[in-house]
Amino acid sequence: MSFKELLQEKTREADEIICSFLPKPGIFDNMLVEAMNYSVKAGGKRLRPVLMMSFYRLFGGNGDVVKPFMAAMEMLHTYSLVHDDLPAIDNDDYRRGMPTTHKKYGESLAILAGDGLLHQSYETALKAFESGSENVVRALKIFSDKTGINGMLGGQTADVINTGKTIDDRLMYYIYENKTGALIEGSMMIGATLAGAGDDDIDTVMGIGSKIGLAFQIKDDLLDIYGDEKALGKPVNSDNRNDKKTYVTVNGPEKSEADIINLTREAGELLGTIGNNEDEKNFLRQLFDYLTSRKN
Amino acid sequence: MSFKELLQEKTREADEIICSFLPKPGIFDNMLVEAMNYSVKAGGKRLRPVLMMSFYRLFGGNGDVVKPFMAAMEMLHTYSLVHDDLPAIDNDDYRRGMPTTHKKYGESLAILAGDGLLHQSYETALKAFESGSENVVRALKIFSDKTGINGMLGGQTADVINTGKTIDDRLMYYIYENKTGALIEGSMMIGATLAGAGDDDIDTVMGIGSKIGLAFQIKDDLLDIYGDEKALGKPVNSDNRNDKKTYVTVNGPEKSEADIINLTREAGELLGTIGNNEDEKNFLRQLFDYLTSRKN
Repeated sequence: MSFKELLQEKTREADEIICSFLPKPGIFDNMLVEAMNYSVKAGGKRLRPVLMMSFYRLFGGNGDVVKPFMAAMEMLHTYSLVHDDLPAIDNDDYRRGMPTTHKKYGESLAILAGDGLLHQSYETALKAFESGSENVVRALKIFSDKTGINGMLGGQTADVINTGKTIDDRLMYYIYENKTGALIEGSMMIGATLAGAGDDDIDTVMGIGSKIGLAFQIKDDLLDIYGDEKALGKPVNSDNRNDKKTYVTVNGPEKSEADIINLTREAGELLGTIGNNEDEKNFLRQLFDYLTSRKN
Repeated sequence: MSFKELLQEKTREADEIICSFLPKPGIFDNMLVEAMNYSVKAGGKRLRPVLMMSFYRLFGGNGDVVKPFMAAMEMLHTYSLVHDDLPAIDNDDYRRGMPTTHKKYGESLAILAGDGLLHQSYETALKAFESGSENVVRALKIFSDKTGINGMLGGQTADVINTGKTIDDRLMYYIYENKTGALIEGSMMIGATLAGAGDDDIDTVMGIGSKIGLAFQIKDDLLDIYGDEKALGKPVNSDNRNDKKTYVTVNGPEKSEADIINLTREAGELLGTIGNNEDEKNFLRQLFDYLTSRKN
């Protein structure tokens, strides 16, 4: 099987797992659940759940305990996009080629649907306790740490409140590390943790996540400036239009491209030192490379 | 000690516990943390944490495991108010006599601060695992169930999307049961659960919470129409101005007042059948009565 086919297969598997945990509409909450599920079903790369499952298997995991966490992470990621797109924040009309949640359901329901996904992400992650695994509490703490004010939300907020302002390098790295990096790091760490990886290995996984997260965000910024609107499913150059300072506007496209390649190579080297599943290791190496050449 | 003094003492205790769990501002997240803590520190009755602690003690609890959950519940309650006040939802300028979060910090930061409080509520509740108590997982599941789409958020959303529409009795009770009732019920149930109460007792506690939650919401609606703006710290009659159908507009003020008294009496009778701490039982009985006569 080629890498492309393998990635497609793993994305389909993640998609199926995510959808199996989506809430079913009841009598009185049908609009809320519809708006929540709309944004999750709108698609996306499912990169975070795919990474989580792959790191779980890399460390010998072969049970179901990872599945609720995969769905939880995708719900959490989706909530962050729904709120990010709101008129008061980025004011984006399209995401993944479809109308954003507030364009389709109105602003108040978009706020509440985003809230609902954040609630539901925890409600879903808690289902992992049914597996009886002793690693669930540790995984929940990583989930909480990497998604909240010391993780994704902290980076997202710093990004929003500093839009159009001159920011120093430390703040820029803080935003990159947290806004995008934290969920990628967290996904890898949770997968490894649920498979029973030790503290040293988790530290190495965090290092890999940090490098891949940064590379991923730089690539996103490059695509936002130079990408193909059709392939992306959203307008290009929106960061520039909003006067946002990015890694690319600071370092230029050549250094940014070179940094992506270096970060990916370093992550691959760290990957060589951990885990016992060579198939997953090969897949992850190719996935890291794929991130440097993707078109959306 | 009079009931008023006892309530003041217990409110102060809850307040101290809540504040001890508030996040400390870092270098780059200081604005986010400031906006989060602003809305929590703006005050309020701390009714939910006080109820949680009291039901914990009613069943013989005397440890620290309840404290993170008390703070978590108040953070969660506060997030729901911050998002409820937003321009796209209720568009309220004042809450508890102070400018609402979006009036003070702007709309984007108010959305993110609300998100932050929801994240932080779980991050805080997870600290209860440090106690080593075996009841934490059950308490977390109640927390998740009563706050999310099958609890508070479900009721809140149904309320928002049905504003100005004709609603039937079932939908009205769904909104009352969930929008306000669920957090009150959940607070009592979590307190009892953490103290090790059995399933039958938890069912009785849920019944008490359901009755008190409904009485509390009817009283809120009465105050919203007939209350003293100064004592409330917010404009009266805002529900009417927004064309909201409430229990009071449907049943009239006399029946509403009578229902509050009946619900409170029934809750008191159920209370007589559970728990082993007579001091707490007396306090709770008086607290339930107090809810029927409060001015804010």
